[in-house]
Amino acid sequence: MSERGNSQIKKAKPILGITMGDPAGIGPEVIAKALAMPAVHRLCRPIVIGSLPVMDQIVLRLRLPLTIVRVSDHDVPAHSGSVCVLDPLDRPLGKFPLGAVSEKSGAASVAFILKAVHLTQAGCLDAIVTGPINKEAINLAGYHYPGHTELLADLTKSKEVGMMILGGPLKIMFVTTHVAIRHLPDSLSANGIVRSIRLADRAMKAYFGVAKPRIGIAALNPHGGEGGLFGEDERRNILPAARRARRMGINASNPLPADTLFGKAVRGEFDAVVAMYHDQGLIPLKMVAFGECVNLTVGLPIIRTSVDHGTAYDIVGKDVADCGSLVEAIKMAARLAGKHA
Amino acid sequence: MSERGNSQIKKAKPILGITMGDPAGIGPEVIAKALAMPAVHRLCRPIVIGSLPVMDQIVLRLRLPLTIVRVSDHDVPAHSGSVCVLDPLDRPLGKFPLGAVSEKSGAASVAFILKAVHLTQAGCLDAIVTGPINKEAINLAGYHYPGHTELLADLTKSKEVGMMILGGPLKIMFVTTHVAIRHLPDSLSANGIVRSIRLADRAMKAYFGVAKPRIGIAALNPHGGEGGLFGEDERRNILPAARRARRMGINASNPLPADTLFGKAVRGEFDAVVAMYHDQGLIPLKMVAFGECVNLTVGLPIIRTSVDHGTAYDIVGKDVADCGSLVEAIKMAARLAGKHA
Repeated sequence: MSERGNSQIKKAKPILGITMGDPAGIGPEVIAKALAMPAVHRLCRPIVIGSLPVMDQIVLRLRLPLTIVRVSDHDVPAHSGSVCVLDPLDRPLGKFPLGAVSEKSGAASVAFILKAVHLTQAGCLDAIVTGPINKEAINLAGYHYPGHTELLADLTKSKEVGMMILGGPLKIMFVTTHVAIRHLPDSLSANGIVRSIRLADRAMKAYFGVAKPRIGIAALNPHGGEGGLFGEDERRNILPAARRARRMGINASNPLPADTLFGKAVRGEFDAVVAMYHDQGLIPLKMVAFGECVNLTVGLPIIRTSVDHGTAYDIVGKDVADCGSLVEAIKMAARLAGKHA
Repeated sequence: MSERGNSQIKKAKPILGITMGDPAGIGPEVIAKALAMPAVHRLCRPIVIGSLPVMDQIVLRLRLPLTIVRVSDHDVPAHSGSVCVLDPLDRPLGKFPLGAVSEKSGAASVAFILKAVHLTQAGCLDAIVTGPINKEAINLAGYHYPGHTELLADLTKSKEVGMMILGGPLKIMFVTTHVAIRHLPDSLSANGIVRSIRLADRAMKAYFGVAKPRIGIAALNPHGGEGGLFGEDERRNILPAARRARRMGINASNPLPADTLFGKAVRGEFDAVVAMYHDQGLIPLKMVAFGECVNLTVGLPIIRTSVDHGTAYDIVGKDVADCGSLVEAIKMAARLAGKHA
């Protein structure tokens, strides 16, 4: 029987480690809400990696019909309707001050991630879905990383990683993320752009099985710079990067005016797009998939998806947090883990 | 009978002057195609202000079932199915070199605009719809303007004008247009932003009859600058401008992260949006209304809409030009002229 034929055989559902994120943020709430949905359990066997008392508390407060089951490192999650929690905290940290930055929450956030990575590398989990952490909190706890991506790269000794955001028909890789527009042109280098193009290509091949992905490259300036009239960045960095990527065998476009490129991608002319900056890619993503975007870290030896929102301290405890992005992140992780199995 | 009641009475259709734009561009082709649509004639009485020989030629080449009728300054357009052309060129300029920049085409482009403005100010036309012109060509002909907007402001002695682009549910006023991203932050001033907010407010009141328009103000930087972490422009210019606008009685928001603002506008939370730069506004516009965006010049004493594309010299004579944007510009001008009647 061919490899292809195997995909028809009923396989066990993938085991996903869902890290709680910052216990003082909305992570616990969106996890509890997502795990109350039968659809989620139909797709995967989830294990929450987080604080057991915090999960107990949130399920109680939200009055969700869920049973919490404590699992240890090597348990396989039991049955739907119950929430399997693996709590890696050695000693009880006491209460986490809700909706506020604290060293305690930062330390716990990182402990959950360390455990999830360890279990995935040991072959116990098929993929990781991460809840939101707070940068300031993890820094207070002594972990000096701007976010998950850099921490995960370090833990897995991955040299070249990047974030792809998926929403509706769009798959977008970002060359820069949180850079002020004033510093943006000088933050772009041909090397950085080539790296993002390569990661986009790699993501489409490794995760989505596209043999020869068509990668659309966004220009930086209006009308793509219009031959240098409205900016030199296309000629200086972006076009040379696109040419280098093509010499590597990647099907990358020239820099294209951003105002029409994303529409072309929606209509299927490109498999993925490389965006030069945050809003350039996130404006179209949120137009087509508001509240349902998923972050996928590309370049790690493990599968990791993530919510597209932060800890939202301002709404913690109000029970208004939307679990839409987490549900999409779980679905995507389950889908990718299924393909890799 | 109240003013309101009057709107029920059958009124004469508005008379629109459609300027040909650059005779060497795709203006003549998209005009001929649009005027071959009965829907256009149901909405308005169009008069093409352009070269009669060029219109003759294009209708013949496209094999459109249209009769060309020459009209003079004070004729009212006759009946559907015929294309009324008012040719203001005193002496025949000879052939226009198609698909190329020339002084002759530039001079003709401007002559059409001058005539249209004159007729509108004299009360013979209800609104103007402009075809695309070429900046280089009009400069060769001695008219040193970057585009229509500045020329029209000058001709009508209007001090404060701006371009609003309409597409689907979005109405967007731009603070800057063709500025390289590198020069963008220094191109923004609180004064310039206040002017755009005021124009957006004025447009919504004057053209769309919204008594107290809700104006959404886009931030420049990712996450709206996140309190100065990713850029100072919000605190330095945009927020002060929003506050000044509010003190003038305008219902303007604070600067909001651009990646969620346009979605909010689509869902009806704002009547108009002020965008800081070209792609910021045009990415969402083209996502919701690709090929159907309309430019509206705000601040003139006359109604003027325009196509959202250029002369497209590269496709002249290939009969592939799309008249979608012109049709939308005609519809919008007819709608606005009807309201003003």
